[in-house]
Amino acid sequence: MSTTTTTSRGLQDVIAGSSAITYIDGKKGILAYRGIDIHDIAEVASFEEVTYLLWHGKLPNRRELADFTLQSVRERKLDAQLVSYLRQVPKHALPMDVCRTMVSALSFFDPEETVNTKEANYNKALRLFSQTAMIVATYDRLRKGLPLVEPDRTLGYAGNFLLMLTGNRPSDTAIRAFDTAMILTADHEWNASTFAARVTAATLSDMHSAVTSGIGALKGPLHGGANEAVMRLLWVIEDSGADPVEYVKGLVQQKVKIPGFGHRVYTTEDPRATHLRQMSRDLGYSSGQPKWYENSKAIEEWVNKEKKLNANVDFYSASVYHMLGIDVDLFTPLFVMSRMSGWTAHVMEQLSDNRLIRPRAEYIGAEVPQKFIPLDSRK
Amino acid sequence: MSTTTTTSRGLQDVIAGSSAITYIDGKKGILAYRGIDIHDIAEVASFEEVTYLLWHGKLPNRRELADFTLQSVRERKLDAQLVSYLRQVPKHALPMDVCRTMVSALSFFDPEETVNTKEANYNKALRLFSQTAMIVATYDRLRKGLPLVEPDRTLGYAGNFLLMLTGNRPSDTAIRAFDTAMILTADHEWNASTFAARVTAATLSDMHSAVTSGIGALKGPLHGGANEAVMRLLWVIEDSGADPVEYVKGLVQQKVKIPGFGHRVYTTEDPRATHLRQMSRDLGYSSGQPKWYENSKAIEEWVNKEKKLNANVDFYSASVYHMLGIDVDLFTPLFVMSRMSGWTAHVMEQLSDNRLIRPRAEYIGAEVPQKFIPLDSRK
Repeated sequence: MSTTTTTSRGLQDVIAGSSAITYIDGKKGILAYRGIDIHDIAEVASFEEVTYLLWHGKLPNRRELADFTLQSVRERKLDAQLVSYLRQVPKHALPMDVCRTMVSALSFFDPEETVNTKEANYNKALRLFSQTAMIVATYDRLRKGLPLVEPDRTLGYAGNFLLMLTGNRPSDTAIRAFDTAMILTADHEWNASTFAARVTAATLSDMHSAVTSGIGALKGPLHGGANEAVMRLLWVIEDSGADPVEYVKGLVQQKVKIPGFGHRVYTTEDPRATHLRQMSRDLGYSSGQPKWYENSKAIEEWVNKEKKLNANVDFYSASVYHMLGIDVDLFTPLFVMSRMSGWTAHVMEQLSDNRLIRPRAEYIGAEVPQKFIPLDSRK
Repeated sequence: MSTTTTTSRGLQDVIAGSSAITYIDGKKGILAYRGIDIHDIAEVASFEEVTYLLWHGKLPNRRELADFTLQSVRERKLDAQLVSYLRQVPKHALPMDVCRTMVSALSFFDPEETVNTKEANYNKALRLFSQTAMIVATYDRLRKGLPLVEPDRTLGYAGNFLLMLTGNRPSDTAIRAFDTAMILTADHEWNASTFAARVTAATLSDMHSAVTSGIGALKGPLHGGANEAVMRLLWVIEDSGADPVEYVKGLVQQKVKIPGFGHRVYTTEDPRATHLRQMSRDLGYSSGQPKWYENSKAIEEWVNKEKKLNANVDFYSASVYHMLGIDVDLFTPLFVMSRMSGWTAHVMEQLSDNRLIRPRAEYIGAEVPQKFIPLDSRK
């Protein structure tokens, strides 16, 4: 009880608990979900398959996947009251604030909100998986004054989302790219948002509270907000007409941090960047707009050589999402959609062997006790 | 970079960072805000004074307190859209879900939502301080079908809240009791909800995201939800007509945990319980309903003697809030109101010297790499 362990700032490299979900070797650049290397599944599996893997610890067979898909399709619905809430969102509200608030509000309509059992939490995870995508698509249509698009039960997660968002049936290439992007960002061990979700769940609060904490943490530019910054940088460079490398050199000289580079955990290339770079290239050349990929590649090579920093998951996801026709301010909400699979997996794991997460702080304040001076005697 | 430190489960007794706000000596039972012992201020200061202390690091003089009070009174307003959201909350929604969602929604209406400067965050803290109380009072009036009560600028935080909640001008005793309860639960170092708020803020997310995480964590029965459980126990005992000690003995024999006892940090009496016990007694005898205090006292003495567990902050706050005429399902939202001062102080401190809080996990899952089996070959 009485020993206190002093640790590094920001808990860097501190083991805060144990987990069987995701393995990362930051020195070798390995990322594996439930033991399966991300390189083996990123471009061949669907987001549903990987969500099943994260939640169940194994990949589904055909029948299990069909059941899981059916269940997730059945949850593609939003309570009319929630759609009404979305209609009333002020135009200037930030998409991540809307996302956090509306996912939190899903709790009002959850039929098992007062139940915190293993089974109820699995059902909540499934609803959150399907309904978060509905929230993002519905919000974007409403804010643009466009008619809402009904979900299509013949389409998987990726295809259905792109349809509901854009109103157009997506190409197979677009669906594949979107599935891959969702898979690559589905989980990442005890990152800040997942840690916030686990700290919240560990008080025996509830699934909605936990993932709402996750969304709040993901909003930050040191975490989920970075790919939006990357896209804005690519635009500024495009608008300025400057050479991308010269532009980035100028920023570095002014000590501006280039978004999309470096990672707390990886010292090698972020294994997720490998696939996103490829997807950015494929989408760029197939859609006849290779400039976003080419400019990104030029910046990456320079930063890699001069600053010894590797591109992270955010760097190429920016151009990928942009070429899929998605608004830049939805990039972080898309990250919410993918990480929802990971957060819910971690909450279920946390609750399977729970302990309150409550650290201590080193006190560096005024000496105790300070003399108390009554109000009228204070200077 | 490469060393990993293994720590105890739930980060128990692990120093996760440094802080100048609150000092706790769990062995001696000392709690001090900015160096001032809680025993010196709990029964003499107002909640505004203590909030100023937490935010500024010193107690205000008369002029500073008058300015602070004026500023907080000016923020006693809710956007009409937010009141409309509250009107549309389904009747069966849980008050803590409503509280979390509506505090999150305050971000839609914050004039500085896109600004993350020191000054803007202070202004947001002030708005959250005043408006969280408005949300709780407004929600309770609306769900009961009662007319809303306008805030009264001649009353301080405690008096104004009780007026807006009950529709009646509160007695001086009630105001004093409420101020004391708010002060005692305003901050408690790096407790789980404050830690969730700091983890969220450390991604450079925003004030609303951080406190929303705090609310989510506080909802849990291992954290803020316990005083509600204490009150429900007192009721069950009352309804059963049993002797309180005999009833609790029976629960302990059935291995049921008695709510309101024990604390991760204190091995002595929780110094907050000392004042809440006194308030429970005072309110009980002055209001002619001493049974809640007397039954609580009898249970405390037995648990203390037989189980060697001390009453914590939750144990006597239950009867205090009940005797103030507040519904039991608002007890945790009241905790949100008080802890809002602490969370916002901690977010401001975190941002003054920020570092991403991102621990690692010990991997205990399947061996890496597992062989990838294509979908149609899976058993």
